[in-house]
Amino acid sequence: METLTVDLGDRSYPIIIGRGLLAGGHDIASHVVGGDCLIVSNETVAPIYLDRVAASLAGKSVESIALPDGEQYKTLATMQSILDRLVDSGANRDTTVIALGGGVVGDITGFAAACYMRGVAFIQVPTTLLAQVDSSVGGKTGVNHPGGKNLIGAFHQPRLVLIDTDTLTTLPDRELKAGLAEVIKHGAIADIGFFEWLESNMEALLNKDPDALAHAILRSCELKAEVVADDEREAGRRAILNFGHTFGHAIEHCQGYGDWLHGEGVAAGMLMAAELSGLPDSDIARLRDLTAAAGLPTEPPKAGSAALRKAMGLDKKVSGKKLRFVLLSELGNAFVTADYDETRLQKVLAAAD
Amino acid sequence: METLTVDLGDRSYPIIIGRGLLAGGHDIASHVVGGDCLIVSNETVAPIYLDRVAASLAGKSVESIALPDGEQYKTLATMQSILDRLVDSGANRDTTVIALGGGVVGDITGFAAACYMRGVAFIQVPTTLLAQVDSSVGGKTGVNHPGGKNLIGAFHQPRLVLIDTDTLTTLPDRELKAGLAEVIKHGAIADIGFFEWLESNMEALLNKDPDALAHAILRSCELKAEVVADDEREAGRRAILNFGHTFGHAIEHCQGYGDWLHGEGVAAGMLMAAELSGLPDSDIARLRDLTAAAGLPTEPPKAGSAALRKAMGLDKKVSGKKLRFVLLSELGNAFVTADYDETRLQKVLAAAD
Repeated sequence: METLTVDLGDRSYPIIIGRGLLAGGHDIASHVVGGDCLIVSNETVAPIYLDRVAASLAGKSVESIALPDGEQYKTLATMQSILDRLVDSGANRDTTVIALGGGVVGDITGFAAACYMRGVAFIQVPTTLLAQVDSSVGGKTGVNHPGGKNLIGAFHQPRLVLIDTDTLTTLPDRELKAGLAEVIKHGAIADIGFFEWLESNMEALLNKDPDALAHAILRSCELKAEVVADDEREAGRRAILNFGHTFGHAIEHCQGYGDWLHGEGVAAGMLMAAELSGLPDSDIARLRDLTAAAGLPTEPPKAGSAALRKAMGLDKKVSGKKLRFVLLSELGNAFVTADYDETRLQKVLAAAD
Repeated sequence: METLTVDLGDRSYPIIIGRGLLAGGHDIASHVVGGDCLIVSNETVAPIYLDRVAASLAGKSVESIALPDGEQYKTLATMQSILDRLVDSGANRDTTVIALGGGVVGDITGFAAACYMRGVAFIQVPTTLLAQVDSSVGGKTGVNHPGGKNLIGAFHQPRLVLIDTDTLTTLPDRELKAGLAEVIKHGAIADIGFFEWLESNMEALLNKDPDALAHAILRSCELKAEVVADDEREAGRRAILNFGHTFGHAIEHCQGYGDWLHGEGVAAGMLMAAELSGLPDSDIARLRDLTAAAGLPTEPPKAGSAALRKAMGLDKKVSGKKLRFVLLSELGNAFVTADYDETRLQKVLAAAD
């Protein structure tokens, strides 16, 4: 078992990573504020893990709710169903809300916890690789709007992120691969050594080798925790974590949320951003090979370049109506800029035509 | 013109109070982040003041939206209509949202600004006495839930609170009086000298004497700014600002929002809280006389003691399922406690039977 800390002063919290944590290996109750918990999960995850989490909350009053499963349900209406449940059960400020599931469950649940009585405690128990290496850490919560992804939300840090790597044994292969996109991202933006490790260990990861997965999760969380501690509310550097996401969100938006998984959009988006960066062909080839080795798309869908560009116009990184991108100065080093080559952008987008 | 500062480190902001500020007396544009503004007002206030505010935003791109007027529209659905408008206009993180109106407009608009792209800048231009002395200062934003008042919201501080006291000339008398409830509250909880001043100047306030109103607003904002700077997120002392509100919110809830104005509920609620405090009869009489002099109710409606108690169960000050109240140790001095006299509470609530 490894424990990291996201260092945010009085809002600091631990990330605990290990095997068997939900099978009695960890006492979640010790992190719970007050006596009441609401576990929010979804229809896929709840039947497998809900009882285990509830069992680790001995002495607490525990209720649960199962959301429908899928990115298309990441809406204000679903979030409101959690709020309704909290009101119905008479939940007060000392209630702790526990998100048990993937990134969608974590994002919606965190946002509900942020808004209920202007903020109650919440705990992340991510059960997908994507949520474990990315979305459960850092306090970004929110829901989609028909006009764009994650347009409505809040920064609300959890009290604890509890990652039981054994949950990946039940994760469908397609979702495992989608999570690997964010793992590759961490190497590409901040750690060439980790990128090289991934080049050597992709097969082990796809085979769900426990030690390889544990290392990939730990290193991803370390990198993300460091960036978040430096810039919690994304005033600057934190935006590098969005590498591939400007294109990726546009892909998801044009395809309708749920058709392409988030990680799949990010995978194709990273290649597009690498090309916009003007990296040497050899570096782009390395990123493409690693992405392909993870079984992820390396090209955008044929959504049309105009549609993608329109969808990018609502990206949260847009400042003063000018598009901003996360680009790579080299593999392992990212920066945010509004100064990009428009001709090259057109060429990158043309891959969707 | 007077300027106060709400001292919250890098989230500090000015409260500017004066006459004629909207009639060209103040340059709001200098406080605006970025080039785009959305003014959110309501159907009553917009026809009177919208053009003036828009005129003070020279050089900015200005859009506006008018919400329906009334506490019954302080809902997640109304808040969503603001978000929809922001999305439709392609608003980005550099947009500034300006709330022009009373407490309902300010609370909903601030919450929308808190949630859009996880937080954009907003400015409060309160046009009712209640909003000027209370709700526009301190960053509490939110909407009502059918199960209780302000159950959904966020802490999101404005960049500026601009109070043009001339707006009170168009305020209906009933709303002026409702605002005076919060003014009386500030004296009762924190400043016996101000309470005494109110006892001497209530007639001038009801006659909308500009100097009297200016003093009442300034002193209220000073007291509130000091409490908020001390305890932004209501971990402790800030809760004293809720004096009268546990009962008041329950009254509003039982009557249906909009029947009793917020300030009217608070007025009756303050008397109930003073009685629960066990103050000497002479002090209760002073509070009752001042409240009555302001033309405000001093008794709860006949909503039934059981209904009021049930509605109080969801109050945000509830901790560990035990009701907490803001009580007075003497006129001018409030404290928060879960240690109250149950028999006395029953007697206080029985006034609603």
